[in-house]
Amino acid sequence: MARLAGRLAYDGTLYCGFQRQRAGLASVQVTVENALSQVTSEIISLMGAGRTDTGVHASGQVIAFDATWKHSTEELLKAINIHLPSDIALQSLMEVAASFHPRFDALSRTYLYRLYISPTRDPLRERYVWHRQLPLNLEAMQEAIQLLRGEHDFATFGKPPKGENTVRVMTTAQIEAMGDELHVTLTANAFLKRMVRSIVGTLVEVGRGKMNVAEFAAAFRLADRKKAGTSAPPHGLTLTHVVYNDYRF
Amino acid sequence: MARLAGRLAYDGTLYCGFQRQRAGLASVQVTVENALSQVTSEIISLMGAGRTDTGVHASGQVIAFDATWKHSTEELLKAINIHLPSDIALQSLMEVAASFHPRFDALSRTYLYRLYISPTRDPLRERYVWHRQLPLNLEAMQEAIQLLRGEHDFATFGKPPKGENTVRVMTTAQIEAMGDELHVTLTANAFLKRMVRSIVGTLVEVGRGKMNVAEFAAAFRLADRKKAGTSAPPHGLTLTHVVYNDYRF
Repeated sequence: MARLAGRLAYDGTLYCGFQRQRAGLASVQVTVENALSQVTSEIISLMGAGRTDTGVHASGQVIAFDATWKHSTEELLKAINIHLPSDIALQSLMEVAASFHPRFDALSRTYLYRLYISPTRDPLRERYVWHRQLPLNLEAMQEAIQLLRGEHDFATFGKPPKGENTVRVMTTAQIEAMGDELHVTLTANAFLKRMVRSIVGTLVEVGRGKMNVAEFAAAFRLADRKKAGTSAPPHGLTLTHVVYNDYRF
Repeated sequence: MARLAGRLAYDGTLYCGFQRQRAGLASVQVTVENALSQVTSEIISLMGAGRTDTGVHASGQVIAFDATWKHSTEELLKAINIHLPSDIALQSLMEVAASFHPRFDALSRTYLYRLYISPTRDPLRERYVWHRQLPLNLEAMQEAIQLLRGEHDFATFGKPPKGENTVRVMTTAQIEAMGDELHVTLTANAFLKRMVRSIVGTLVEVGRGKMNVAEFAAAFRLADRKKAGTSAPPHGLTLTHVVYNDYRF
């Protein structure tokens, strides 16, 4: 029995999110567990770094599991990918310490949110961007987003998991123009539930002029969930990186 | 009654191609005609610049139709997009000469084929790239593709529509590395059926070392459909531009 870990990518469109849910759509977790069980003929329980919501994508989710496997990790990686559907892929796999946990050992997570700014839709990006028809005030959004950097109470933008507080350390908070898209990149030690989507939704209100930077700052300082703007939809969001002390996936 | 034309983009994954077919999957043409009929309350017949195959995408297909519309083309564009599904979008619309035909008046078409080179799949690009696990010899592919430039008989790579010959003029034929992708760009006055996919499939055989550049050149010169390699799958292909003398869409 060894603990194995690797980088998982998925198109979240058809899933209820990473984590197992009671009914309805399949979860990424259960789909991967089923593939692992088919390959190893064992019942496998999957750990993940981040609980992405329904419809949220990942290019750098980190997962770990315990399994008995006599051959190389390269062969296991190939076999798993053969059993995964086309919207999920395991992109790397290595043996890690038996104590490794992708969620508790993570030093930071990075999320990318893509806004597509154009009078008309783009069907070739539709699944991965939030389409906004009117231009947004990028300078105002940049001024607002930098207020998030550092250690703060993020209660305005999300609820904590049970028993945790709402203070997080944000090391990257930036928004930049990339052609006809605006890319919001956020890195923090951990995120509250729906935090990225709540931040992006509120930033877009700043970009539209519905809220000014001073109002954004005041809403943030009040640490009151009711002060946030409407959350951005899930399909613009991708979990891109999870960083650890001892491993790079 | 006016003739209107514009740029149409679509994710071809769920369609039998641009053109109306007898059974099975819906065509892009019929789907757009239905949206136009809903908006204008007229029976609309759609003309297109290129008959993209099943599963092929477009970012710059050009379409035209005749309709009676009392308001602005901006309003018509908005109304049409509301009635189109999320995988099709009309991105521009203008009034054109009553004699304009997007297929017969086109001076050139440009197609992009994306190859994704990586040991593992990428679910976030899966719909739009042909995934190849092993590296390809880019230099050999570049040497082969430049043979296609100019006026040639392209019979090796496709069949002509009824009554046409197989001579075409290729003004751009290039393959370049873009990060972990190889992008094949082909521009010609017109293309034979399946021509881009046949060229890309044969080029990949050169990239794999299964065929050398001299053999590629000989297969091309013989103008014999049986000499081509296996065609590349449709989902890596996108119709990106159609050029006209009098209009830019």
